[in-house]
Parts: sequence; structure tokens; C-alpha cells
Amino acid sequence: MAAPHLSVSRRTRMTPFSRRVEAAGVKAYTVYNHMLLPTVFQTVEDDYRHLKSNVQLWDVSCERQVELTGPDAGRLAQMLTPRDLSVMNPGQCYYTPMVDETGGMLNDPVTLKLAEDRYWISVADSDLLFWIKGLAFALRLEVDVDEPDVHPLAIQGPKAEDLVARVFGERIRSIRYFGYDTVEFEGKRMVLARSGYSKQGGFELYVEGWQRGEPVWDTFMREGADLNVRAGCPNLIERIEGQLLSYGNDMTRNNTPHECGLGRFCQTREAIGCIGRDALLRVAVEGPVRQIRSIAIDGDPVPPCTDLWPIFAGGRQVGTVSSAAYSPDYRTNVAIGMVRMTHWDNGTRVQVDTPHGIRAATVWDKPFTQQDRN
Amino acid sequence: MAAPHLSVSRRTRMTPFSRRVEAAGVKAYTVYNHMLLPTVFQTVEDDYRHLKSNVQLWDVSCERQVELTGPDAGRLAQMLTPRDLSVMNPGQCYYTPMVDETGGMLNDPVTLKLAEDRYWISVADSDLLFWIKGLAFALRLEVDVDEPDVHPLAIQGPKAEDLVARVFGERIRSIRYFGYDTVEFEGKRMVLARSGYSKQGGFELYVEGWQRGEPVWDTFMREGADLNVRAGCPNLIERIEGQLLSYGNDMTRNNTPHECGLGRFCQTREAIGCIGRDALLRVAVEGPVRQIRSIAIDGDPVPPCTDLWPIFAGGRQVGTVSSAAYSPDYRTNVAIGMVRMTHWDNGTRVQVDTPHGIRAATVWDKPFTQQDRN
Repeated sequence: MAAPHLSVSRRTRMTPFSRRVEAAGVKAYTVYNHMLLPTVFQTVEDDYRHLKSNVQLWDVSCERQVELTGPDAGRLAQMLTPRDLSVMNPGQCYYTPMVDETGGMLNDPVTLKLAEDRYWISVADSDLLFWIKGLAFALRLEVDVDEPDVHPLAIQGPKAEDLVARVFGERIRSIRYFGYDTVEFEGKRMVLARSGYSKQGGFELYVEGWQRGEPVWDTFMREGADLNVRAGCPNLIERIEGQLLSYGNDMTRNNTPHECGLGRFCQTREAIGCIGRDALLRVAVEGPVRQIRSIAIDGDPVPPCTDLWPIFAGGRQVGTVSSAAYSPDYRTNVAIGMVRMTHWDNGTRVQVDTPHGIRAATVWDKPFTQQDRN
Repeated sequence: MAAPHLSVSRRTRMTPFSRRVEAAGVKAYTVYNHMLLPTVFQTVEDDYRHLKSNVQLWDVSCERQVELTGPDAGRLAQMLTPRDLSVMNPGQCYYTPMVDETGGMLNDPVTLKLAEDRYWISVADSDLLFWIKGLAFALRLEVDVDEPDVHPLAIQGPKAEDLVARVFGERIRSIRYFGYDTVEFEGKRMVLARSGYSKQGGFELYVEGWQRGEPVWDTFMREGADLNVRAGCPNLIERIEGQLLSYGNDMTRNNTPHECGLGRFCQTREAIGCIGRDALLRVAVEGPVRQIRSIAIDGDPVPPCTDLWPIFAGGRQVGTVSSAAYSPDYRTNVAIGMVRMTHWDNGTRVQVDTPHGIRAATVWDKPFTQQDRN
């Protein structure tokens, strides 16, 4: 389908950075957690090239926070995920698959432990707040659950560390991957994490207070002028190359974490109290019968994947493609899909039914970024 | 802001009618419950004119259903809303404000009672499924909570009844407002309700089974050719004239049903078991201090309302406008806003701070459609 227009309303919330994003010439958005998320500035391919060699500011305010505060915050956090949080310390971020009572994915947020009795859950595109509020109310937990006035800004790209060091000092270079520290901006302490939805390196700054959005944005733009800093956004090509999953695209409530290749983030036996533990213990032992794979689709560039594309082999359906884009660097269409065990081995040849016809394709058992390039 | 483009992906789900909607020349969408909802076909004003004198088919699949099935379905339904469901019978639809433990609005769905142990909740734009699943799990209720393969199609406009009677027979004329009956399409029984998000009259057909979407659509188009049937969508101007509220635009979790003017749908004392009852009993007695009002904004057409516009009187803020559009029929900008008690009386003059400058405005205590027209 041709790119249609988006009707913007209060319901598709603006962000503290929206005016800067518009001034930077944003071309398209998606709606994510009832909020605008930019998707294109120049072209998807130009944005990709720039991201891989420079530094970009991303308005990812749509990564809304669910804040848990109170004596039962830790207990509630552990109920949400099969990842073992008993070993988590303040200063750490954990990528946390979150599941329902059947082990089906409800979201795949990053959880930040701020203190023993305070967590932020930085959510992908579903109202996880509603699930958590329902549990906290019905179980009469001593915890407050709310969406705070916090708006993440990502600084991504190979020059991100240099830019962030200019703004917040050299100390930030020692922040570890998925660790965070606090930094001060105009007298306000804020969380700065080494994380982000790209494989180019970078940080996410949890901007507290709507009114600080533009001053923060302007500071990074000014300090990064000679680093060629630009407004950017999560890039479809780059995230598929790195097999960064998108909730709602590559996985839904129908999938377990194990199907999503997130088994390494599940310590289900240790995660005492996790909802869905009974269901997942079994899956963890037996393993899934289908799993996320990277897939290279031969031929000319395919259009964006707006619905599942069936994967066939030997006349039978063996999976579905959920995300796809042409990669200039890998000189093929890169894709993410769910493939049955019978055809998920590295190098397996399959066919994908794309809107541009049946295409030959190859299943890879690692992200493109972890393969040897020819 | 200029209308940007929308990047469509699997996450912004297509519907069973999407191909027909695209063939009909849809110009813009919004995203609603992670699904495409058309917003414009010709222009908002042309669509408005056509809706008021003909009949339109609306793809409102984004009104996702939450299905409650099982012995505790009725008990759970009553927990969700301050509306008294003890007097509800199968065959009825109730407009049901749904609130959290503080009485804050979580959604304003239409609830259909299909049987004593089976309900559909036809939701506005929030993942109410997550709230309900959280409650059902934590309270160990004997109920299944899921999103079924059901996709509402609205038939709206003054000629809607004639069109629906041609397709399903004269019997449908006896369906009462917010009542439903079942009709048969190609051997499948489906729910047909006299309801819809317009004041022009009409029906909503709950199409069961994705594959039936296009045959149903094509049947209505064929039977309605001489009634000038067209593809349409909820119309911004028409819904503001009729003060049809939009969750996320005109109300959020910050508002009680009473603030939203929905007190007449709350029988909080009778709604034994309703979550938030304690909080709402107090509000029901004392009344809200601010409430939804229709507002006429003087002067040239204002742009769409993408964020709250402050309302001032005597130099103090007394409210906010949340939706606005120029109405050709009322020859003024029509709007919906939340106004403080001190200024909510009919005819109160105020000022609204629009993106086109400060405008004089008038507060009305009834929807435009219930006022005497000059």
C-alpha cells in the first residue's frame, strides 16, 4: 500500500520533543503507545547511512514508563517476568520479557531498578500499565503503579559516546552496557543508560519533566554540530540487520519468550512468583517448535511487511516473515520471521510469499550483524 | 502541524476490510487499538455532507472485542463498570464507562450481553484486555478472557436502515436503539446492533471470521448502489456536533465518568462489586468540579486539536479544549472541552488559546445537535 497520511489528534500524543522533530523535517510517523514515534527523516536508507557513521537524537518518548513504587514493588516486578530479578541491583537495566499466565508475551520492556522499592518499566507498544494495575489492585499489593512525567531521548550511533561525554562529562564513558548512572541537567538529576534500539552504540536519557525536553534537545544539537548530529529514529533496516525484535510486529501474545529467541533472558526456575511460570517451565525443558530467525530474501527490494508473509518449503508452510527491508550493506533483503524447527537450521533454503511474488530465501541462525560478511 | 505520512507495519494491524478501504481511496488513517482506522476519504467536509444525507460503510474493526466467557463472566463485567448490569438482559448493548480503583476512566466501551455467561466488550482506544486479564488472573475467576476473531462494520447515515433491511430483511427495523439481534450471512449467524459512532442513525454488524469481511462489504456495496452508499469513517465534525466523546482525546485516566458527563450511565450504589465504587460514590454525591461541555469557537476555521488548548476567563484558566473542527452546518467552530463549574453554565463567554491565536468562545450545556438552531 502507498504511504497514507496520519491524522494527528490529542489521542496520538505529542512529545516534549515534537516541535524539534517537526522542525527537523520528519517525514513519517508511526503511533506507539498512543504517542507519535518518528520513522523517517530523509529516507529510510539515508537515515540508515547516517546512523551507522555519525550520531542521531531519537525522540523515543513513546517508550513510556510504568513506575512501581512501594514495599511490594520488587515482588510485583518479579511477578511480571521469567527473568530472575533477585540478583538485580540498583544501577542496572534488564531486558525483561513479560508474559501472561499462559507464557504469552505481553511486552518486552527494559526494566530499570532505581531502588529496592522503585522500578521503571520502559515499555514497548502495549498498555502494560493496565495489566500491572489490574494485578496490583486485585492482589492488594502495597505499591503505586503509574505513568510518570518521563520521556526517553536516545543518542545513538558510533559518535554517541563522544557527544554524551561533551554534555555530561567523561565519567559517562564508564557506564556499562545496560547499566545506568545519573547525570545532572540544569540542576535536575536524570537517569542515563547505555542502551537503545540500535546496534550502533549509544545511550538513552530518561528526561524527567516535560519542560526540559527542548533544552536537552537543543544542548545535544549544539554540542554535536561538528559531529554531524541529526534528528533520527529507530531505523527499519538497521534493526532488522541486528535482529532487534519489535513487539506487535515480530511477536505477539501468541508467542512465548522461547519462540522469540529470548530464552536466555528467562531463568524461569529461579523466577519464583512469576506469572506464567508453570507454562514456561514446560516450554523451557521441551524447547519451542518454532523460533525467531533472521532471513535473507533474494531478489529486488521487497515492500514493507504490513502483514505476515508465509514461508514455504516443499509445498508446506513452515513459518512467517514479520519484518523486512532491503539492506544496502548486506545487498539483500533482510528479514525477521518465525520458522518451524524442521527448517530453522542455518542456511536452510525456503520460499517466501511476498507481495512481489514468491522469492527464494535463506534462514540464518544468527542476526546478520553476527555473520561473517562476504 | 501538516499531515505527516503514516508508516504502516504489521503492528498497526490491517483489517478484513483494508483492501476494500484502500480501493475506495482512503486518504488518511489514525491508529486505534494497534489497528488502522480510516479518517478521511474525500475530505472531512465532503465525507460529513455525504454521511448526513446518505449511507456509509465504516471499517471500525479497531473496536476490538474483549470476550468474557465462563461462570464468572457476569461478576467480572460488573467489576469493570459503575453501570448497573444486574438489570441487563441478553440482546442488550450498554454504553459502559470503565474505571480503575480511583474512578479514573480506562475506556468507554459498549458492552454486549450475549448470554448469562458470555459478554463482548467493544473497546475504545486502550488495551482494556490487559486490565481485565490482570483482574481475572489475580482474582482466580472462572472466566476466559480473550480477543475473538470479530470485526465490527458500521452502516451509518439516514439511509442505513433501508440498506440493512435490503441485506437482512425487514425484521431488522424492529431492533431498538442499543439493542441487537442476530442475522445470517452465508450460513453464519452474526450480531447486528442498532448503534454507532454518529448521530445519523445506523447499525454495527459484528462480522465473525476474518474471511467474511470482504463478502459482507461487497454485499452492502452492491445492495446500496442506488442509495449512494460509500466507504466512510467516523467523522470529526459530526461527532463533535453530537458531543460523541473520544477516549484519549476528550477524556483520559485523569477523568471520572462524572467529569465526562457520563453520570447518567453510573448507578454506582447499585453496581455492587464495581472497582472504584468507593471513590465514585463520593463523586456521585458531591458532583464534579469540571465537566465536559460543547463549545463554539468564534472566527475562521481552527486547525485540528493535537493538544489541549487552554480556556481562559478573566485572566484565569478555567478549562481545556480537546477536540475542534469547523462545522459547515452550524457555521462556527464546534469543540468539546472540560470546563470548571464556575464557567460551565449555558452561554458563558470565554476565550480559547488556539494555534491561530486567542478566540472568543461560548460554552453550551448541551451538544450542538440538541440546541435550537438559528
